[in-house]
Amino acid sequence: MTTSSPSPTADRGRRGGRAGKRAAGSDAFEQKPFRQLIIPFEPTRGVSEDELEAIHLASLRVLKEIGIDVLHDDARAIMKKAGADVRPGDDRVRFDADMILEWMGHCPSEFTLHARNPEHNVRFGGNNIIFSLMASAPNCADNDSGRRPGNQLDYRNLLKLGQQHNIIQCTGGYPVEPIDIHPSIRHLECIRDLATLTDKAFHIYSLGKERNVDGIEIARIARGVSREQLADEPSSFTIINTNSPLKLDIPMMEGIIQMSGAGQAVVVTPFTLAGAMAPVTVAGALVEQNAEALAALAFTQMVRKGAPVGYGGFTSNVDMKSGAPAFGTPEYMKAQLVGGQLARRYNIPYRTSNVCAANTVDAQAAYESVFSLWGAIQGGGNLLMHGAGWLEGGLQCSYEKLILDIELLQMVAEFMTPLEVTEDALAVDAIRAVGPGGHFFGTEHTQSRYKTAFHQPMISDWRNYENWQLAGSPTAIDRANTLWKERLAAYQKPPMDPAIEEELNDFVERRIAEGGAPTDF
Amino acid sequence: MTTSSPSPTADRGRRGGRAGKRAAGSDAFEQKPFRQLIIPFEPTRGVSEDELEAIHLASLRVLKEIGIDVLHDDARAIMKKAGADVRPGDDRVRFDADMILEWMGHCPSEFTLHARNPEHNVRFGGNNIIFSLMASAPNCADNDSGRRPGNQLDYRNLLKLGQQHNIIQCTGGYPVEPIDIHPSIRHLECIRDLATLTDKAFHIYSLGKERNVDGIEIARIARGVSREQLADEPSSFTIINTNSPLKLDIPMMEGIIQMSGAGQAVVVTPFTLAGAMAPVTVAGALVEQNAEALAALAFTQMVRKGAPVGYGGFTSNVDMKSGAPAFGTPEYMKAQLVGGQLARRYNIPYRTSNVCAANTVDAQAAYESVFSLWGAIQGGGNLLMHGAGWLEGGLQCSYEKLILDIELLQMVAEFMTPLEVTEDALAVDAIRAVGPGGHFFGTEHTQSRYKTAFHQPMISDWRNYENWQLAGSPTAIDRANTLWKERLAAYQKPPMDPAIEEELNDFVERRIAEGGAPTDF
Repeated sequence: MTTSSPSPTADRGRRGGRAGKRAAGSDAFEQKPFRQLIIPFEPTRGVSEDELEAIHLASLRVLKEIGIDVLHDDARAIMKKAGADVRPGDDRVRFDADMILEWMGHCPSEFTLHARNPEHNVRFGGNNIIFSLMASAPNCADNDSGRRPGNQLDYRNLLKLGQQHNIIQCTGGYPVEPIDIHPSIRHLECIRDLATLTDKAFHIYSLGKERNVDGIEIARIARGVSREQLADEPSSFTIINTNSPLKLDIPMMEGIIQMSGAGQAVVVTPFTLAGAMAPVTVAGALVEQNAEALAALAFTQMVRKGAPVGYGGFTSNVDMKSGAPAFGTPEYMKAQLVGGQLARRYNIPYRTSNVCAANTVDAQAAYESVFSLWGAIQGGGNLLMHGAGWLEGGLQCSYEKLILDIELLQMVAEFMTPLEVTEDALAVDAIRAVGPGGHFFGTEHTQSRYKTAFHQPMISDWRNYENWQLAGSPTAIDRANTLWKERLAAYQKPPMDPAIEEELNDFVERRIAEGGAPTDF
Repeated sequence: MTTSSPSPTADRGRRGGRAGKRAAGSDAFEQKPFRQLIIPFEPTRGVSEDELEAIHLASLRVLKEIGIDVLHDDARAIMKKAGADVRPGDDRVRFDADMILEWMGHCPSEFTLHARNPEHNVRFGGNNIIFSLMASAPNCADNDSGRRPGNQLDYRNLLKLGQQHNIIQCTGGYPVEPIDIHPSIRHLECIRDLATLTDKAFHIYSLGKERNVDGIEIARIARGVSREQLADEPSSFTIINTNSPLKLDIPMMEGIIQMSGAGQAVVVTPFTLAGAMAPVTVAGALVEQNAEALAALAFTQMVRKGAPVGYGGFTSNVDMKSGAPAFGTPEYMKAQLVGGQLARRYNIPYRTSNVCAANTVDAQAAYESVFSLWGAIQGGGNLLMHGAGWLEGGLQCSYEKLILDIELLQMVAEFMTPLEVTEDALAVDAIRAVGPGGHFFGTEHTQSRYKTAFHQPMISDWRNYENWQLAGSPTAIDRANTLWKERLAAYQKPPMDPAIEEELNDFVERRIAEGGAPTDF
């Protein structure tokens, strides 16, 4: 199905050398249309209301009694002006509970994240959930060529796979870090690709002022809007991972100043691993997560009241034998549920993730991911980062895992689609017509509905054992391997107004010629 | 950890030729103690209260307007006496709504299922959940020897693996059907094994009166109680899978008469596959499921008021291309949630399952199973049938899947363990002591807790990629393969009073000598 009605401009874009591939693109395989996903279930609570309040109050004590080290001079000045306890010559900033909560009160509870294709706009907050592509892996891998460091070709391929699938509703950063592009200009090349190879909303890394400014400008050009309109219509977002415990560094604060200042979305996500950068108790790690999140979120509002934000939870545990982070664990799931309760307590959108620690696309990868999805959906997540591709604790973006995750996300989307409970769906007449001992397949009730009655899997193999064995006993990873190649071959660049593409290229080329951004961050 | 304090009798039992293996048994590997599992979360609702009522009312219409074919003469007579519309020379029985609901009102909402080891008693109903071993596979398989028809050696091995793991809280039937035992005496051999190789509660198949009677007698002897005490303390259960659509056959009705009559638990589970034996709509399949369940459950109360029961949901969809049943699908999950709502509406315990359609222990097996677990736990399940071992839509019990499922169930149990939210767990003092930029590993707060802080996986491989690769890139199925062999080698028969064992053997041998049970069922 088409994800958008091609505009005349779009048609022109398509004719630009790709006319022969018209039959390919998003029509090349069956999938549900792009749509806003809604969680129809009441969120599941991981702790009682009293316990939630205890976590909230403990984090306010941390902010007041211990404080946060803020390494950015201007940020401390802004905080001081906003009422924080900032002392000369000291990075430590302490926050009063009332002051923090007053600033938090300016955060919007819900907003639209704008894509350059308006049909790919998504709502962030409420009972909406957005699924994003994996981000920030240093390595990528596929079953044919094995594991390798990130590079531009793989980066682009992974973006293309994200663009093609309607269940991937935004990108979330670079699926893999293309280290073959010089760091000074990497953001320019990469964000140009995000804006041209995909037409969905995207993420900008906060790695120094210039990168944020360049990214915002590319988002503006791609949408063809003014800075004022862009500030009213967030069209990009940044993830701020605090330096847990209790530190906010210069690029992070600069990122908030630039992004919140320009009305772009800031999702604050402390990376609080219980037993390492946070207390070994999940409750304690959540206290630390919440303290750090509140400090950075309040800061976004000091920069610009009403700036769009998200509350990110990434609390997990480490393997106490090796120190390695673990994901998709019971502790991770519990932290997901409570993270959602905290975000809802402050009435702001909640970001969570689809993660695992597995090294290959085996049963472990699947169960850790589905456990993560369980925590995310039941926890009331609004943005699922790393929705597709994540392997190896985030050190690898896998082509096969990306396809497997798309299957999982499509299944979750179908699970979230409410049952039809009409008179016809209740089917008393069909049951009467068939009667005891009969079969429903041949009935009109079945025949008129069977083609679309059920979710159609793309990886799940439902053949019987004998047929499956005759076919060479393929496993899920084998099927995912075949699929990503078929789909990538059918990729079609989404249409873009040539004038906009020219402006965008001019901007990027000029900034590259200027040398890009400093690399001493 | 030990699951029970060995009694003097137990010690005697152990000395009976097994003294040399004292170090083995359930102490041979680390696991959490046997415990009653509780779902601490509010169940997730798949439909609104109004929609639930519509499903309920539609199923009452089916019972009144269409009726159920009941093939057992005495059962029809009992139903007639209880107020059902039974006509001479007609199998069809119609039920009035008030009459059905009045009989349903006698069902207990919660009861204890007694094991011969009282420390393995489990509560069925309320917010308790019981995890059982897989049941009824015609084939079994392991990664070394491949797939083969069920036989006594594998049957016993699978029982032993179930007995060893505390997370498996009862057996659920024969994990694999041992076709090398003649059908006339198979139930005698198999139930003797259930009662001696395990000390947990077990299931009796309803395949003709004699089998139920023999099974109940073995349960009684194994517990060393009178028939009266056994009737007050259900110590076995049977699953009644109705012949959907709308048929109750002779062995089923006989099973209810025998089991409910003896105060043993009856779990009615219509096998309503949407698009085959039930309407293609999930709502319609649930209407049919509910009508069949209500008819059979009401019948249990006509046999004996207050007889312990469970409401079973097994509604799933078929692959509309091949007709094969699909499991762990979004439709299955939705049916799990609504099934729980229906059971709670009638205030009776709810049975659901851990199932998948995968042919091997790959990512598909894992994601379909975890999706099933998601639906089961969030749906408020009280008995999880097929908890460990299920593969291939139930046609295979896999040694590796059994171990994988044990990992999944242990993770779910940990997810259901409430977070500690005490002052010490909130860890404000630990956060203060570490301060911004510090590390928690060396702190007293961490050191005093880290050994038991987190769930310890047995299959999940958290090594980094390089170490994992050096170890030969094992996948989850490889690790499960190693584990089941290690664990089976450490199996120790649970202690049994020799006098009881002798009585049990005498009974079984006598019944075998008598020729067992008819095989013309």
